Amino acid sequence: MSLNNSDPVTVRFAGVEMDGIYINRSGENAIVKLSSGYNICVPTSLCSAKEQTVPAEKPRVLPIKQDPALPLLSIISTGGTIASTVDYRTGAVSSRFTAEDILRSIPELAGIARYHTLQPFQVLSENMNPAMWQELAGTIHDEILHGSEGIIITHGTDTMLYSAAAVSFMLDTPVPVVFVGAQRSADRPSSDNAMNAICSAKAAVSQMGEVVVCMHANESDTTCALHRATRVRKNHTSRRDAFQSIGRGPVGEVSYPDGTVVPAKDAVLRGTKELRLANNLEPSCGLLQYYPGMDPAVFDAFKGYKGLVIAGTGLGHVGTDCISRIAGLTASGTTIIMTSQCQAGSVCDRVYETGRDLLDAGVIEGGSMLPEVALVKLMWVLGNATRKEDIRRLIRTNLKGELEYDLWRYA
Amino acid sequence: MSLNNSDPVTVRFAGVEMDGIYINRSGENAIVKLSSGYNICVPTSLCSAKEQTVPAEKPRVLPIKQDPALPLLSIISTGGTIASTVDYRTGAVSSRFTAEDILRSIPELAGIARYHTLQPFQVLSENMNPAMWQELAGTIHDEILHGSEGIIITHGTDTMLYSAAAVSFMLDTPVPVVFVGAQRSADRPSSDNAMNAICSAKAAVSQMGEVVVCMHANESDTTCALHRATRVRKNHTSRRDAFQSIGRGPVGEVSYPDGTVVPAKDAVLRGTKELRLANNLEPSCGLLQYYPGMDPAVFDAFKGYKGLVIAGTGLGHVGTDCISRIAGLTASGTTIIMTSQCQAGSVCDRVYETGRDLLDAGVIEGGSMLPEVALVKLMWVLGNATRKEDIRRLIRTNLKGELEYDLWRYA
Repeated sequence: MSLNNSDPVTVRFAGVEMDGIYINRSGENAIVKLSSGYNICVPTSLCSAKEQTVPAEKPRVLPIKQDPALPLLSIISTGGTIASTVDYRTGAVSSRFTAEDILRSIPELAGIARYHTLQPFQVLSENMNPAMWQELAGTIHDEILHGSEGIIITHGTDTMLYSAAAVSFMLDTPVPVVFVGAQRSADRPSSDNAMNAICSAKAAVSQMGEVVVCMHANESDTTCALHRATRVRKNHTSRRDAFQSIGRGPVGEVSYPDGTVVPAKDAVLRGTKELRLANNLEPSCGLLQYYPGMDPAVFDAFKGYKGLVIAGTGLGHVGTDCISRIAGLTASGTTIIMTSQCQAGSVCDRVYETGRDLLDAGVIEGGSMLPEVALVKLMWVLGNATRKEDIRRLIRTNLKGELEYDLWRYA
Repeated sequence: MSLNNSDPVTVRFAGVEMDGIYINRSGENAIVKLSSGYNICVPTSLCSAKEQTVPAEKPRVLPIKQDPALPLLSIISTGGTIASTVDYRTGAVSSRFTAEDILRSIPELAGIARYHTLQPFQVLSENMNPAMWQELAGTIHDEILHGSEGIIITHGTDTMLYSAAAVSFMLDTPVPVVFVGAQRSADRPSSDNAMNAICSAKAAVSQMGEVVVCMHANESDTTCALHRATRVRKNHTSRRDAFQSIGRGPVGEVSYPDGTVVPAKDAVLRGTKELRLANNLEPSCGLLQYYPGMDPAVFDAFKGYKGLVIAGTGLGHVGTDCISRIAGLTASGTTIIMTSQCQAGSVCDRVYETGRDLLDAGVIEGGSMLPEVALVKLMWVLGNATRKEDIRRLIRTNLKGELEYDLWRYA
């Protein structure tokens, strides 16, 4: 009997029967999305059609109860795994839940705060773009202006670090702005979505006062780390503790389940900054990683761009044959920042010959800025400054913790 | 009195006098390359000209003594910090030493083996390219063919991982092939060059039998790690223990100073493989990291390329608006591998909608391959296979430990 995509099937394998959804992608083998949420790949011959059963009655939608004595938070839903479930038609995961759905599915949230929920747009995070970052920063600004005491942004983990860094540059905030995501969707037994969401609410009512990313701190369910938005990376494709602070520790931790929030010594605390929005961005900026043997003509793809971040090798190098192309770009008005494809450490183009040639070509050293953060910062700087010396100075100024210090003070 | 670049100067700062070389890069501040090897940045006013002294007599060049009872190793010098010293004219570091210089400066090496030294070329590693990788693999092959019992390649750390991976794909080796570099040049007190070189010689005479990178395992001077060439990254711009195995531990360790080499359980041992060189490479391959807001036209820079590796987000995604460009590239004959810009973990484009669209666009999932390794592997595969199904199968076959297993067996 032939099976079609999305057919409910029973898999018999090693003496075990498992129910799932049939997804044929690979000839003699089939992928089956099991009811546990995991995919397995088995020979098609082990799959047989499952009798269709009448779908269970839809669970009753409970009204959301809000306690007026609790602080007011805003939950801004943008999509991603934390807001996603499996599409049983295709077996793939798609973004579905709204902020209200999250409140319904995680009742513990109602004990922490009152919530205003918004959904300015709903995308898988690989489709986020600078215009959405601007809208997001504007939405956060307006929520704080209208009395929100903390912000939670649910976001796909893929590009969360770019969005968090972008909001960090665009917004001075007196209250915590907490990006939160999940690596495993709510239908999976190992889902991190509830714990991360609860910890993000605890962080949002805490004494923190900056833009952070709240995700599992380790493989167990004891702690969420609060990473500074400009110093965080997604360092694993699937682990729940994929996010790591780079070149420093987290700026805070949330214990679970007791909910204690401990800010790091250098965390920016609630009320330190006044609310201020500067959400101009120049989207004509690119990012390019150098690799050995790169045809220098690849740089021509960025001709006419306002800005370019290069992820060079080591202390910030590219092949010598690329330098004249780079000089051509800077001469035609492209602002170029050099960063490193090494995970951590700082660019220093004054040590090796190649680096010094790059400085002569007009490249600006990006210090310890992560390439992705440098890209977002460059968009912000070019959106807010026009004079060359201001641009250079802002790039080399520690604006939101993306650098350890103001580079221009020392070189 | 005005100072010029490269003038010997005395810096008086906080009651201390330090000698160095004046390097004016930044207006009112000067950079001074101290005699310790470190650079400092101080106000120009604190620098004064130093009396020129007659240069000391050149040290006598000692002849290299070789013990005929010891195993024969080859040291192939390609340049880089391990072979570099400071150019006191410009204050910058440049590659100078030959393999013979290294033997002279690290006398301990003579107690470990006899050496045949070669210097096929001498470059800073950002200038390495696929043609040099081919020459290097050929040189190594010939050395083994003529009786070398182990190979040491001194290499700049910037692109060492690309070169090591390239040699790994091009060469089946019965003896250890050890890439070694240094993060700090020999003239600096914290130089790692002697310990790394000694450990690399110990590894080269050991029972290891694969291509590895030998560098400091941690911040102290107790151990060098031997990283599998296809699973290693330079994760810090300047730390001596910058190199880390990704997604697995090192395949071996060298204790220092006692020189014990302990292979990991799954290390490939001496004599396991027969010598075989397949050093065709297709250099028309590129690497591109996706970022939010990327203009899909950036992909046009790779039109006509034989191969392209994309470092996508998360499990292997790009913005939806890029997918038709990618489909256009694959339709015109470009082989495209999807990898992840996350440090570790595995690509899986069957989970989310965007990924499944990418598979339909003809993109090949790169599993857990590091983007840089996937680039080098793609050059090798396209240099050694022409039929589409062979190319696809080789990409998805674990050739040299770049994958945990053959992907095609499971999906």
